Amino acid sequence: MADTNLSLVLHGIKDLRLEERPIPEPGRHEVQISIRSVGLCGSDVSYWQKGRIGNLVVTKPMVLGHEPSGVVSKLGSGVTNVRVGDRVAVEPNRPCGTCCYCKRGRYNICSDLHYLATPPQDGCITRYFCHPATFVYKLPDNVNFDEGALVQPLALGFYACERGGLKVGDYLLVTGAAGTVVQVGLGGATTQIPLTMVTLKELNIAGSSRFANNYEKVLEAISTGRLNVRQLVTHRFPIEQALQAYTATLNREGAKVIIDCSRQQPDNHQSD
Amino acid sequence: MADTNLSLVLHGIKDLRLEERPIPEPGRHEVQISIRSVGLCGSDVSYWQKGRIGNLVVTKPMVLGHEPSGVVSKLGSGVTNVRVGDRVAVEPNRPCGTCCYCKRGRYNICSDLHYLATPPQDGCITRYFCHPATFVYKLPDNVNFDEGALVQPLALGFYACERGGLKVGDYLLVTGAAGTVVQVGLGGATTQIPLTMVTLKELNIAGSSRFANNYEKVLEAISTGRLNVRQLVTHRFPIEQALQAYTATLNREGAKVIIDCSRQQPDNHQSD
Amino acid sequence: MADTNLSLVLHGIKDLRLEERPIPEPGRHEVQISIRSVGLCGSDVSYWQKGRIGNLVVTKPMVLGHEPSGVVSKLGSGVTNVRVGDRVAVEPNRPCGTCCYCKRGRYNICSDLHYLATPPQDGCITRYFCHPATFVYKLPDNVNFDEGALVQPLALGFYACERGGLKVGDYLLVTGAAGTVVQVGLGGATTQIPLTMVTLKELNIAGSSRFANNYEKVLEAISTGRLNVRQLVTHRFPIEQALQAYTATLNREGAKVIIDCSRQQPDNHQSD
Amino acid sequence: MADTNLSLVLHGIKDLRLEERPIPEPGRHEVQISIRSVGLCGSDVSYWQKGRIGNLVVTKPMVLGHEPSGVVSKLGSGVTNVRVGDRVAVEPNRPCGTCCYCKRGRYNICSDLHYLATPPQDGCITRYFCHPATFVYKLPDNVNFDEGALVQPLALGFYACERGGLKVGDYLLVTGAAGTVVQVGLGGATTQIPLTMVTLKELNIAGSSRFANNYEKVLEAISTGRLNVRQLVTHRFPIEQALQAYTATLNREGAKVIIDCSRQQPDNHQSD
Repeated sequence: MADTNLSLVLHGIKDLRLEERPIPEPGRHEVQISIRSVGLCGSDVSYWQKGRIGNLVVTKPMVLGHEPSGVVSKLGSGVTNVRVGDRVAVEPNRPCGTCCYCKRGRYNICSDLHYLATPPQDGCITRYFCHPATFVYKLPDNVNFDEGALVQPLALGFYACERGGLKVGDYLLVTGAAGTVVQVGLGGATTQIPLTMVTLKELNIAGSSRFANNYEKVLEAISTGRLNVRQLVTHRFPIEQALQAYTATLNREGAKVIIDCSRQQPDNHQSD
Repeated sequence: MADTNLSLVLHGIKDLRLEERPIPEPGRHEVQISIRSVGLCGSDVSYWQKGRIGNLVVTKPMVLGHEPSGVVSKLGSGVTNVRVGDRVAVEPNRPCGTCCYCKRGRYNICSDLHYLATPPQDGCITRYFCHPATFVYKLPDNVNFDEGALVQPLALGFYACERGGLKVGDYLLVTGAAGTVVQVGLGGATTQIPLTMVTLKELNIAGSSRFANNYEKVLEAISTGRLNVRQLVTHRFPIEQALQAYTATLNREGAKVIIDCSRQQPDNHQSD
Repeated sequence: MADTNLSLVLHGIKDLRLEERPIPEPGRHEVQISIRSVGLCGSDVSYWQKGRIGNLVVTKPMVLGHEPSGVVSKLGSGVTNVRVGDRVAVEPNRPCGTCCYCKRGRYNICSDLHYLATPPQDGCITRYFCHPATFVYKLPDNVNFDEGALVQPLALGFYACERGGLKVGDYLLVTGAAGTVVQVGLGGATTQIPLTMVTLKELNIAGSSRFANNYEKVLEAISTGRLNVRQLVTHRFPIEQALQAYTATLNREGAKVIIDCSRQQPDNHQSD
Repeated sequence: MADTNLSLVLHGIKDLRLEERPIPEPGRHEVQISIRSVGLCGSDVSYWQKGRIGNLVVTKPMVLGHEPSGVVSKLGSGVTNVRVGDRVAVEPNRPCGTCCYCKRGRYNICSDLHYLATPPQDGCITRYFCHPATFVYKLPDNVNFDEGALVQPLALGFYACERGGLKVGDYLLVTGAAGTVVQVGLGGATTQIPLTMVTLKELNIAGSSRFANNYEKVLEAISTGRLNVRQLVTHRFPIEQALQAYTATLNREGAKVIIDCSRQQPDNHQSD
C-alpha cells in the first residue's frame, strides 16, 4: 500500500491542522528525507499564536517545523554526499547560491533565502520532504535522531561565538559587554546603545543571523561528548499528537519538546 | 643667554594666557623636542570655550595642543631611535606600557593613558617639551613641519579604516551602513541603533578611539605623494599670536590653522 | 543567414586550429556571451607549446582562452542580474556551488572547479559561449572590452593582496619576506623554506589560488581611474589571426596581447 | 639571620654548580619573587649538555630555569597589580616595551627580548629573583605552585592554537596539514615545503614564537578544571638536588620534573 504524507499545517492564527499531502519527489541535487525528530522552539509557537514574527507574516497555509533529523529515503540526480538509508541532520537553509552573500560563504544572509517554516517556505513536520543534498549531514553512529534535531539550536550558539571571534580559552560573558558583543535574536526595531562607551573602549557589536557552515562542527562536538544534550529532551510526541506538543511548548513545560514524524509501529517508540 | 619656554596655558573658560615655564629635562627613554608646528582642532576650541569635552574637565591650568612636530633638542638616557637635530612628528600618546591593553598593542585604550592636552596632561603649544622617544618619528626629508603636525588627524582616519577591516580596493561609505560601521567621534552618551537590521544583515559596529601604531604609515603616505595635505594649511600664526589662531579656528576660517612655536628670527618664517 | 561559431581549438602540442563549432544555448541560470576581447597569458602559451602545465594535461581537443569580455547575447531561464546587450566581464570560474569550500565562499578552491581553458573545460576564444550568470559582471560605461578582459589578471593581484591581509596604507614588499608572504604562482613541487626564521619572526606564508569575489572591486578601480591599464594592451589580433597572436605572446613582444573574437565589419576595428 | 640566595648556575658544558648569589632588589615596576616551583624542559637539558640551542650560546655563567612560580616577597616602586605574599605564576618574558613589535602587542618577538635562561639573561632556579610586575600573575586559590610552573608550557600550546586562528569547535590536526599549519619549535634552518600544494589548497603556514598575552587564560583553564595537569608532575627535587632533577630529565624519566626552590623546613614538603 502506498505511503501517505501526514503534515502539520498552519492555516491561520491558532488554526493548526494535520493533513495528508503528496509525497514530494527530489529534484536535481536534492534528497528526499523520511523525517524522524523535529524540535520545537519559540518561533513555532509565535507563528501558531500570532501568525507572525515581526515582519514575517503567514499569509497562506504553511507546514511548520525547522529543526529536523531523519533518514534519506530517495536521491535526486547528481547527489553523491549521502546514500539511501543514511541517518541525517538537516540544515534548514535553502539559499540561492548565486547572490553576492552566497558567493562569499555568508549564505545565512542570502538575498533570496528560503528557510524552513519561514513564510512562505514550508517546514518539516511532515513524513517526507525534499531538501538540497548539500545541507544534509550524516549523523555519526553514536548520535541519535533527537540529538540530530538539536543541532539546529546548537548551531545558532556556535555561530554566535564564531561571529564574536571567540578563540580557544577566551572568556565568554553571556550578557553584558566585553570586547565583542554579539546580538543574536531580534528585539525591537531600534535599541539605545551607549555608543560613546563603545567608542572609548573600542568595543565591537556584531549582528548574528542564524548560522552557516557549522553543522559538521556541532555534530562532532555531540559525538565526542564535548556537548551532552540528550537530557535536554524532556517531551516526545508522535506527529498525530502535534497539538499536545505545541501546547506543552506554549506552557513552557520541561525543556525541549520533540515531534516524532515517523510512522509509529508497535516496536518503534524509541528515538534511535 | 639662556632660552625660555613660552607656553600657551588655559587657566579657565575663555582664559588663555602666554606664560614662561621652565624648560623640562628629558628622563630615561625620553627626548626633549623643540616644537615647530602645532595644528589646532575642534577639541582645543571646546576646552577654551567650555573648559571641557564631555566628562573631561580642565580643573587646573593646562598647556593646550596635541598635534605637534618639531626638532629633537636633547636626548634622555637610553634613547637610540632618534638623534639631536632630527626633524620629527610626535604622537600625542603617553600610555602606561604595562596594562592589559598596552601589552596587547592597544595602547590607545590604555587604562592609564596620558594624551597631550587631555586633562590633566599638558599639551605641546610651547617652545620645548619632553616625550617618550618611542612616540617620536623622524620626518622624511620631503615632509615639512606642517605636514608633520597633520599626521595626527590623518592617523585618526587611517586608524578608523583599519578598525573597519578595510582592505585594498574595498568600497568605503563615509556615512551610512555597509558591512562594518566605525564610530570615530564622541556624540551623546547613548544612541538609537537599528539593532534588528544589524542582526539580520550581520553588520558590525566598531568603536574607534584615537589611533595606534600607524604614524609610520601616514608619514609614508605623505612622503610618497599618495596623500597631499599641504594645501589644507590655510593659516599660520606664531605662538605669540596664539589667541588669533584660536579665534580663527573658532570662526571656522579656512581649513587647518597652525601655530608656529619656534623662536621667530628674521629669516625663519617658512614652515620647512 | 545563421551565424557560426569560429573557435580556436588546441588539438595537441603546437597544433592550434580554427574551427566552426555549434553555437551553445544557455541553460538555467546561464547566459550566452558574444565574446569580444580575450587576453593571452603565459599559461595559454604553455598549453600550446607543451600540452600541459604541471599536472594539468590536455588529453582531448580544448578551446583556449580564459580572460574574456563580451556582450550578453541570450539569457537562460532564471537570470536577473544582466540583460541582452549588456557589456560584461566574465570571471572564468565555474565552481560546483555545493562543496564545503563553495559554501564557505572559497569557490576558487572548489573540489570540482571548472576553470576556463583548464583541461578538460573549454575556454573562450570563440564567437559565442555560455557561462553561469552569477560570474558575469556589467562593465561600467567608461570601461572598454580590452579593460574588461584585463580584469582577470588584475583580480589575481588584488586577491593575493587580500590573502596577505593587506590593509590601507600597508607597506607592500613584492618580493622578499615581511609579515605575510603570499605565494601566487606554481613553481616546483617542493621548495626550501627558512622555517626557523618564519618561526622566530612569526611570519605567515599564505597560498593564493587564482581569485574569488573581487571582480566588482577591480572594475571599480579601473572605472574610477585608480588603475590605469589601457596602455598595457600593445597588440590586438582578430580571431582569424589567432596564431599570430600566440606567436607574439610566445616571443614576448610588447605587453598584453588581445584577441578580438567579434565578427569584423568594415567599421568595427576598435576595442570599444 | 639574613637569608641567602642559592642558585643553580651553568658554567659550561656539563658544568652545573650551586652557588650563593646576592639577593636582588626590585627596581621601579618590578617585584622580588621567592621562587617555589620551577619546571624543567628539553631546552634546559640542551644548555647543560651542549652549552647551546642553535645560535643561542652560553658564553658566561648563567642561572638556568624559565618555568617559575613563587610568592611575592618585595615590591619595587609603582607596583599595584600584586602584593607581598601573593602566590604567583611568572611569565618569563622581559621585552623592551618600546620597539615596533612591543607597541603592537607582539612582545614575544621583541627586538630586544630578555627571556629567562636564554643567554645572557639569567633564569629562575634560585631562591629570589626580580621581574617586571606586569609579567607576574596571581594564582587562583585552587591552583598550586607546580601548576603555576606548568603555565609556561601550556601557554606555548594555547598560543600556537591562537596563531592558527583556532575557533570554538574547530577540528585540530596536531600533525599534518589542514587549513593552517602552525610551526612551533625550531628545527633545521631550512625545510622542504610542498609549496605548490600550499598554493593550490590555499593553506597557511604560521610561525609561532613562544607566547604572549595568555597567562590569565591558561590560569583560568587550570582553575576551572578544563585543563587537568597535576598528574603531569611525576618528579620533585629540592634545589639542593638540582643535578638529580636534570639527570632525571635527561634520562626522560616520567613526565614533568619540578625543582622546588623554597628553603625546606621540616613541615614544608608539599607543593601547595
